[in-house]
Amino acid sequence: MSDILPTPTPQLILRGYWRSSATWRVRIALHYKSIPFQYIPIHLVRDGGEQHSAQELARNPLAQVPTLELDSGVILTQSLAIIDYLESVHPNPSLYPTNPLERARAIQIAEVINAGIQPLQNLSLLLKVGALGFDKAGWGREYIERGLLAIESMISDYPKHPFLIGEAPSIADLCLIPQLYNARRFKVNLDLIPRLCEIETLCQELTPFKRAHPDSQVDAQL
Amino acid sequence: MSDILPTPTPQLILRGYWRSSATWRVRIALHYKSIPFQYIPIHLVRDGGEQHSAQELARNPLAQVPTLELDSGVILTQSLAIIDYLESVHPNPSLYPTNPLERARAIQIAEVINAGIQPLQNLSLLLKVGALGFDKAGWGREYIERGLLAIESMISDYPKHPFLIGEAPSIADLCLIPQLYNARRFKVNLDLIPRLCEIETLCQELTPFKRAHPDSQVDAQL
Repeated sequence: MSDILPTPTPQLILRGYWRSSATWRVRIALHYKSIPFQYIPIHLVRDGGEQHSAQELARNPLAQVPTLELDSGVILTQSLAIIDYLESVHPNPSLYPTNPLERARAIQIAEVINAGIQPLQNLSLLLKVGALGFDKAGWGREYIERGLLAIESMISDYPKHPFLIGEAPSIADLCLIPQLYNARRFKVNLDLIPRLCEIETLCQELTPFKRAHPDSQVDAQL
Repeated sequence: MSDILPTPTPQLILRGYWRSSATWRVRIALHYKSIPFQYIPIHLVRDGGEQHSAQELARNPLAQVPTLELDSGVILTQSLAIIDYLESVHPNPSLYPTNPLERARAIQIAEVINAGIQPLQNLSLLLKVGALGFDKAGWGREYIERGLLAIESMISDYPKHPFLIGEAPSIADLCLIPQLYNARRFKVNLDLIPRLCEIETLCQELTPFKRAHPDSQVDAQL
């Protein structure tokens, strides 16, 4: 046997959907940290959504993506928990500021999006809102606009950084970029959030963000 | 001057509401870590809610509690970001498991509650749902039950711990306890989640959890 044969890389399996913003955050983290992974699409819409299959419910009883399967077979869910895990096992380059206050501010922005916007405008909630006869698009736009305006306002008090917090992308930027994509889909007035749009432009120039974009995925429907 | 005079303790100010589950999580963390703080109630209901005053909106443009004011005057929002900050500056006793997988699982459970349940059953959303003529109580119960059942199912695959993850309370337990209180208010069938109720009983015996309980707060309405 030759010892120049590469050791098989332990393989992570990311199951998700091209346009799922939580999946997108994790894709950015994996590419940013240059962690190899296999991407298996779960179609959230076709036939009522593959996330409701018995197989996927065994992976995540909440019928949500993404899920990350470790090479031990263990499944992790919840994008921010998955990204925290990736940070623990592949700490460099880091996605969290080292200063405790800056770190907390990065997580604060991530949570405004993860808990304050996304659950109120995601596909499953809007299907429910629509089924009850309410204006889905208006509902989604209201929550996205309110949340992004709050972030634009919060960061106006922080020292001016190139990214949301600091000299490099953090967990905050990973959450911002997919949320701005949704803002456009819901026709939020982007003139209200000029600083966030500036940061988006900067992120979009970086290879990990390009590779993680929905349009670059095998399951993209363009 | 005598050097036995105590140095004034830097004072953190927690603004919140007795029944706010996000405030409650932070109160547990502060008591668990024995960090002194001043608690200033913000009444979320009276006169349309004090969180909408100009003063409170300057602290949190999302009109939410809790906010934590540091002695520098800096304000942090979002309970999980605040708890992460407290962990950074007062690491012992820790509220996060040291093993990366267990840490991720603790955050995963915290996020199922923080992003997957709480935003869909909090006061402001239910006011909106009710104003649109939907059944508020049924809406809240559905999301709480779905989320707690998912957690009961997730932990059935984990090694059996006394707490949700590990030998001591973690961020996961801090989120669970207030959510179970809400589950009772919304008449969720607790027989479906026996393991979560067992963990609740264990937590409720601990002094930090007792001190953080809504009924122990100056703004409690009993």
